Amino acid sequence: MTVPTHLSRTTHDDSGGDAYARAGVDLIARANLVDRIKRVTAKASRPEVLSGVGPFSALIKLATYREPVLSASTDGVGTKLRLAILMDRYDTVGQDLVNHCVNDILTSGAEPLFFLDYLGSSSLPDDRKLEVIEGMTAACNAHGCAFVGGETADMPDIYAPGDFDLVGFIVGVVEREHVIDGSKVRAGDTLLALPSTGLHTNGYSLVRRVFGIGTGGDPATDRAALDTAYSKLGTSLGEALLAVHRSYYHDLAPVLTRLHAIAHITGGGLIDNVPRVLPEGLAARIDRAAWRVPPLFALIQERGGLSDAEMFHTFNMGLGIVLIVGQDEADAITREVPDAFTVGDVIERYDDRSVIIE
Amino acid sequence: MTVPTHLSRTTHDDSGGDAYARAGVDLIARANLVDRIKRVTAKASRPEVLSGVGPFSALIKLATYREPVLSASTDGVGTKLRLAILMDRYDTVGQDLVNHCVNDILTSGAEPLFFLDYLGSSSLPDDRKLEVIEGMTAACNAHGCAFVGGETADMPDIYAPGDFDLVGFIVGVVEREHVIDGSKVRAGDTLLALPSTGLHTNGYSLVRRVFGIGTGGDPATDRAALDTAYSKLGTSLGEALLAVHRSYYHDLAPVLTRLHAIAHITGGGLIDNVPRVLPEGLAARIDRAAWRVPPLFALIQERGGLSDAEMFHTFNMGLGIVLIVGQDEADAITREVPDAFTVGDVIERYDDRSVIIE
Repeated sequence: MTVPTHLSRTTHDDSGGDAYARAGVDLIARANLVDRIKRVTAKASRPEVLSGVGPFSALIKLATYREPVLSASTDGVGTKLRLAILMDRYDTVGQDLVNHCVNDILTSGAEPLFFLDYLGSSSLPDDRKLEVIEGMTAACNAHGCAFVGGETADMPDIYAPGDFDLVGFIVGVVEREHVIDGSKVRAGDTLLALPSTGLHTNGYSLVRRVFGIGTGGDPATDRAALDTAYSKLGTSLGEALLAVHRSYYHDLAPVLTRLHAIAHITGGGLIDNVPRVLPEGLAARIDRAAWRVPPLFALIQERGGLSDAEMFHTFNMGLGIVLIVGQDEADAITREVPDAFTVGDVIERYDDRSVIIE
Repeated sequence: MTVPTHLSRTTHDDSGGDAYARAGVDLIARANLVDRIKRVTAKASRPEVLSGVGPFSALIKLATYREPVLSASTDGVGTKLRLAILMDRYDTVGQDLVNHCVNDILTSGAEPLFFLDYLGSSSLPDDRKLEVIEGMTAACNAHGCAFVGGETADMPDIYAPGDFDLVGFIVGVVEREHVIDGSKVRAGDTLLALPSTGLHTNGYSLVRRVFGIGTGGDPATDRAALDTAYSKLGTSLGEALLAVHRSYYHDLAPVLTRLHAIAHITGGGLIDNVPRVLPEGLAARIDRAAWRVPPLFALIQERGGLSDAEMFHTFNMGLGIVLIVGQDEADAITREVPDAFTVGDVIERYDDRSVIIE
């Protein structure tokens, strides 16, 4: 196993060297942060990472592929960050981010190869940064994905003190003949879905508005709202909202080559995401009775006075990922992927809707 | 030439669908933004980008390489953004970002393959976002680099209205036998450098403090300070500070395989960046008389009362990139790379300094 040096990890601090030290920040502490980050992220590596080279970039060789296709994606965590900051919880958002990225490239059939992050902040304590980075490392590790570098940027006058933004970049690889591109999707195909763990990483600005949390008011009031326990949730609102975005990689890896299409249900819900993988002229018919919408969504809908249309166009409503498979394969795949269940089918499109929820 | 669909471009807006429309934002305008972005970024493509697939990720096949090594890097623009926002200039920071990323992977000998961006903001008008994206597209195009996707995230309660952060992610490729890893660096090698265009993307928090710009004061006063013309600069302070980070790709591509090492002079200046490519036991001896430090740096030093040590540890001081070449190659390379000139040599290390500026 190659031991990566992760030399490409840098901190962006344009406050100046010794001038910065005069301002009370210990330069040695800054160097220590990079060292600490490197020690953490070194836990997530794989043999393709070349060690000892690449001070300004990470270097990764490709293992043997006949015709490798790279699959790349970038994502943020959205304003779920606002809740994490309010709840003083820094260990989960990194997992959210990596899992979101992994799911995005999984839709093309790709296995994760390497990941980089960007952590922009101002006056965020080093220990907090490391918690975030440890979360990303754990999630990379869970996918055999190398955490090859990143940027930790101190951005006074862009971020409020203690605030941060977190961005992930992932690259995966897939044999060209195994790229999932939706070309096999036909009318009559079956729609399967796997459950989400909660909101994943979408809809948080609406939820914050519905509950009046993290919109510039008193943080103590915000925290009290997040700490409120709801019997129907079986936990506090904050815990339910911070549930980690689920990765579907290990569920789907064994059956990937048999799937016709995969839609990751992110912003825009089923309404916007399922059509992204449907060929022209086809529609998805989804049976609302096929699953029970989790209580968190009902709570949000009730508190916000939101319509079904609004809910289905914003949230995943309990379905984190939707698969399209041949009708003759549906039973076998639901057996092989224990969490998968049938939610509908693909039909010829007969009106202007490409997703019909009925 | 493949026409990319750039389907992987998404907007992250978790404010909710119809609920968001009720709040006065036109959903059609949002869809239009993605379409407009796709039309812009489609100008920067290359044949390796697979079209019509990859709704959740970008797919890129590798051209024929014997033993391809991927070189990946991520960067931000730092608080140069603060100045661009104050000056209402959105066309340059995208170029800064791409050029910075290109230089970072160039240090390993890699040619740019594809680029993705993250644009996080709040209430930043669509036309501003497009200007930023057009800047990135132009810079990608100038390098034959495909702009394959990105994320445009609306993050109320993280960014102040009109503020934004901008992050780039680049992947390049290089034949393994041509990876530049510093292993050929020897005592006696020659240091060459190429001029910078200004501060590039580092040192802006210090500069803003020195001139009292963009640190929470009155924007009108900030703008007046930026509009101040200095005869020694031949332009306004703002124009000089916003000069685009130079890319060295086209300068160095023809001689890449003959270079022993490349250091991109970013945060930390010559002091921190040259040692990143030096093998153990060697030091870089740089002759201060070899080049004239541009007047912008002298102005900053004078206004800020900064020491030489502070200046050299924060700014590039006029040298944007440093090359290490064999002594016998130095003359030929300075002839072939018109902007390159000799600034020093590599010596056996004799004290605790790895960079000696004398």
